[in-house]
Amino acid sequence: MKEDRPVRIAAIGLDHAHIYGQVPGLIAAGCELVATATRDDNSAIARGLRERYPDVPVRTEEEILADPSIDLIVTAAIPRDRAGIAVAAMRAGKDVVTDKPGCTTFEQLDELRATVAETGRFWSITFSERFEVPSVARAGEIARSGAIGTVIQTLGLGPHREGDRVHLGDAAGRPDWFYEEDAFGGILVDICSHQIDQFLWFTGSETAEVVASTVGNFAHPDDPGMNDFGEVLLRSENAQGYVRVDW
Amino acid sequence: MKEDRPVRIAAIGLDHAHIYGQVPGLIAAGCELVATATRDDNSAIARGLRERYPDVPVRTEEEILADPSIDLIVTAAIPRDRAGIAVAAMRAGKDVVTDKPGCTTFEQLDELRATVAETGRFWSITFSERFEVPSVARAGEIARSGAIGTVIQTLGLGPHREGDRVHLGDAAGRPDWFYEEDAFGGILVDICSHQIDQFLWFTGSETAEVVASTVGNFAHPDDPGMNDFGEVLLRSENAQGYVRVDW
Repeated sequence: MKEDRPVRIAAIGLDHAHIYGQVPGLIAAGCELVATATRDDNSAIARGLRERYPDVPVRTEEEILADPSIDLIVTAAIPRDRAGIAVAAMRAGKDVVTDKPGCTTFEQLDELRATVAETGRFWSITFSERFEVPSVARAGEIARSGAIGTVIQTLGLGPHREGDRVHLGDAAGRPDWFYEEDAFGGILVDICSHQIDQFLWFTGSETAEVVASTVGNFAHPDDPGMNDFGEVLLRSENAQGYVRVDW
Repeated sequence: MKEDRPVRIAAIGLDHAHIYGQVPGLIAAGCELVATATRDDNSAIARGLRERYPDVPVRTEEEILADPSIDLIVTAAIPRDRAGIAVAAMRAGKDVVTDKPGCTTFEQLDELRATVAETGRFWSITFSERFEVPSVARAGEIARSGAIGTVIQTLGLGPHREGDRVHLGDAAGRPDWFYEEDAFGGILVDICSHQIDQFLWFTGSETAEVVASTVGNFAHPDDPGMNDFGEVLLRSENAQGYVRVDW
């Protein structure tokens, strides 16, 4: 805290509906939303967020990063772009709360780690399926309390609906980036990051090995960049995990 | 069929409660039970079967195999012993219906294949969780009919209760062989054979690769030969499968 005032946040990148959970969550925690910026003014999510906060000024990314009164950047940009936004924000002296996945490549991860080390800022990922889903949060409490004994295996199933209206932000369909593997990072990075996080959390593991994984495109012949199936087998020092995700 | 009479069957090896499904199933299909033999007269299952069929003579294995009037041997012996019983039966000119797993080692499998080829007898495995569980049988019909589209993945969960009274055959506890990995074949051979069979059946796969597997003994420190956890990741040409089994 710089002084005795609310943490001032700005949202950069309004492409995924998770921003609808992140911004109210930060406001509920005492933050103040002071600006938004997006690279896609046609994004249904951007329009939806601005309708919900009509008094919050729309600014450019550059203006937001240059504003020393802004403490923290929250982002739900296209997954490919999140790391770049976070790195720029940390270099501008701001902390970051990013939607999952926080990055889509190992190169981005390396740059994020280096930037955190250099700047001392924090870079935090909103794993909505750990923090925002009450049943999961409660399951995690129970599992970690020891009430069900030692957790030796977790099974995570993440079926997703392509036509899910909530995540479409009332748009007619998914945006183009949703069908480009490079943009969404592949189904395992995009969706399975939730269940990998839950595996680590539920089993008290610090890290895990990906023993085997598969992705596939079974039902989207016209979108070769899409993954509509994915699975991962995980193993840590003390537990096993399996995850299946699909669209 | 040798002549116009019921198929005459004899049971050799009465150690697993699945015999309670196999024998009535074969009788319902028109067979006649003409003899039983067991290597363990203290087996609760053997006693239970003989109480159910008090008029069926108890004979030795040798007598049964030497009796040309007996057409088929059914066995639910200790898993380690099933292949030997089956090979001896085929060499004596009899067909075989064995409980799952039909064998516990690759050497036994090789010998079974060679014996089938040499003798021309049939060797069939009663996968009770495909044939005798109505919900699974119906699920298989639906899946194979195409009604749910192409099956690209199956998930098989096989939790088992060590104190399950039905499978204990009213005995106070599991017999000693249940805790010896060499005797039961390991949890993946013992239990997971069901779900591997279901994977092949549901997905229309002829064979599959075991991509990865794990077994463990987490809760039986006094029985180091026990497996109480197992998992397998399967992959065929057209589908993926995951199985978790536990005691």
